[in-house]
Amino acid sequence: MNDVSAECENQNHGGQKSADVTRYKITIEYIGKEFAGWQRQPNVPSVQQSIEEAIAAFYSYDDPPQLYVAGRTDAGVHATGQVAHIDLKPFTKLMSEFEIMKAINAHLRPKPVAVLKVEIADADFHARFHAVNKLYRYRIIQRPAALGIEKGRAWHVKKPLDVQAMQQGAKYLLGHHDFTSFRDSQCQARTPMRTLDRLDLVVTPLPYADGQLIEVETEGQSFLHHQVRNMVGTLVLVGEGKWKPEDVKTALEACDRKAAGPTAPPHGLYLERIDY
Amino acid sequence: MNDVSAECENQNHGGQKSADVTRYKITIEYIGKEFAGWQRQPNVPSVQQSIEEAIAAFYSYDDPPQLYVAGRTDAGVHATGQVAHIDLKPFTKLMSEFEIMKAINAHLRPKPVAVLKVEIADADFHARFHAVNKLYRYRIIQRPAALGIEKGRAWHVKKPLDVQAMQQGAKYLLGHHDFTSFRDSQCQARTPMRTLDRLDLVVTPLPYADGQLIEVETEGQSFLHHQVRNMVGTLVLVGEGKWKPEDVKTALEACDRKAAGPTAPPHGLYLERIDY
Repeated sequence: MNDVSAECENQNHGGQKSADVTRYKITIEYIGKEFAGWQRQPNVPSVQQSIEEAIAAFYSYDDPPQLYVAGRTDAGVHATGQVAHIDLKPFTKLMSEFEIMKAINAHLRPKPVAVLKVEIADADFHARFHAVNKLYRYRIIQRPAALGIEKGRAWHVKKPLDVQAMQQGAKYLLGHHDFTSFRDSQCQARTPMRTLDRLDLVVTPLPYADGQLIEVETEGQSFLHHQVRNMVGTLVLVGEGKWKPEDVKTALEACDRKAAGPTAPPHGLYLERIDY
Repeated sequence: MNDVSAECENQNHGGQKSADVTRYKITIEYIGKEFAGWQRQPNVPSVQQSIEEAIAAFYSYDDPPQLYVAGRTDAGVHATGQVAHIDLKPFTKLMSEFEIMKAINAHLRPKPVAVLKVEIADADFHARFHAVNKLYRYRIIQRPAALGIEKGRAWHVKKPLDVQAMQQGAKYLLGHHDFTSFRDSQCQARTPMRTLDRLDLVVTPLPYADGQLIEVETEGQSFLHHQVRNMVGTLVLVGEGKWKPEDVKTALEACDRKAAGPTAPPHGLYLERIDY
């Protein structure tokens, strides 16, 4: 995800609309595996291109429909509640929001992406700039056996993890901090300051597999590029016993990407919900 | 699933073992989508063949390893806790149960199937005949929008379902009954009498999609061919308001397959757990 790249763009891009269009808010789910991320790029499949082409298939104007997304997700990252907005001119045949949703989904088949809901939004609604909270979920399956059902849908960690220690380490990241240590070197945000409102670990035992599902739930208004995956990668070091919980505090205070742990793989991450 | 076909087989098949072998209990998970069911068949991929070939890849004897399964699942049906047993001669290099599990999984890649656990079993352990309880879960996603993430992993029902009415209808199926009305015409069981110990509906709201996840959990020692899917197909008629809850009782008492509802699709069904 790269929530902050917006800051490098023209703030009006996607913000102003002309009088003859309706602005729609679109809620989307997808499995990241088959896409090179949200953003349209040449020669690779993207979620954005898939949905824009699905709309274009029943949109009767020459200018291609363009989506503005709340949080661009990286290749392999999933979403259960991604949000985007789009301006559309009147359809030849009057279409309700429900009919637009059905039409987009019909043209998305058989790709692992679906529009959950289409709503008419205020004329100035902006999917990215108006988001007040985002919930990301990171799924870790800790068990000796390889993944069958959850392959590509969770991070597989083979050895036991000390979840209590991970929870202690997570506490140091809550609140308003300079998150430079957890920020990708390519991150384009103007400031590394972010406020982390929640970072919880939810554990479900997996008795037949001698393991556990560990879900890291985190909320905040915005995140730096790779911030969630870098926090998870660091907490797993604590869970493995390679780091003490207090080492997370030291890493945070170092304000140096090299001081924190590795980036957890993309396929464990889900953009679950965005609040406005 | 066809738990009862065992009754048509030689009861000793898979039951007797020679002195030089070790009997293993193997717990397995898989996504049904890519298989024509559990059972080995000519010219189509099966879960059984995949695992037997994975074992054969590191088994140094000419006789092919043969699995005996607890509950044969139909094409498209998933499992999170399928159980099978197998007799294996000593490995050239001594292998622990853990190492056997790892070796099988290494040879199963990249198929959506994994062995969760390998355990040494008693010499007379039989995966099918010794099962005392089975838990099946049937997942229904009721929402207007097409499925993205859960495509092929749940039954998509577009219109709202009255879960309370479904729960009332389900009560008539509990206990010891002649389940002829819910039994596939191809079912080879000697008797249609079965005892249903549990049939619960668990509902999780899906707020972004204006829908709900409805999970039908059912337990019993054994089930007739298509019994779970026929019960679910019938309860959905009740949920849609086409049937009254009491109509389930009438259908059961008719002892006629045509008196009950349609067979729910295979991709909503999970063989979750088998108790011994």
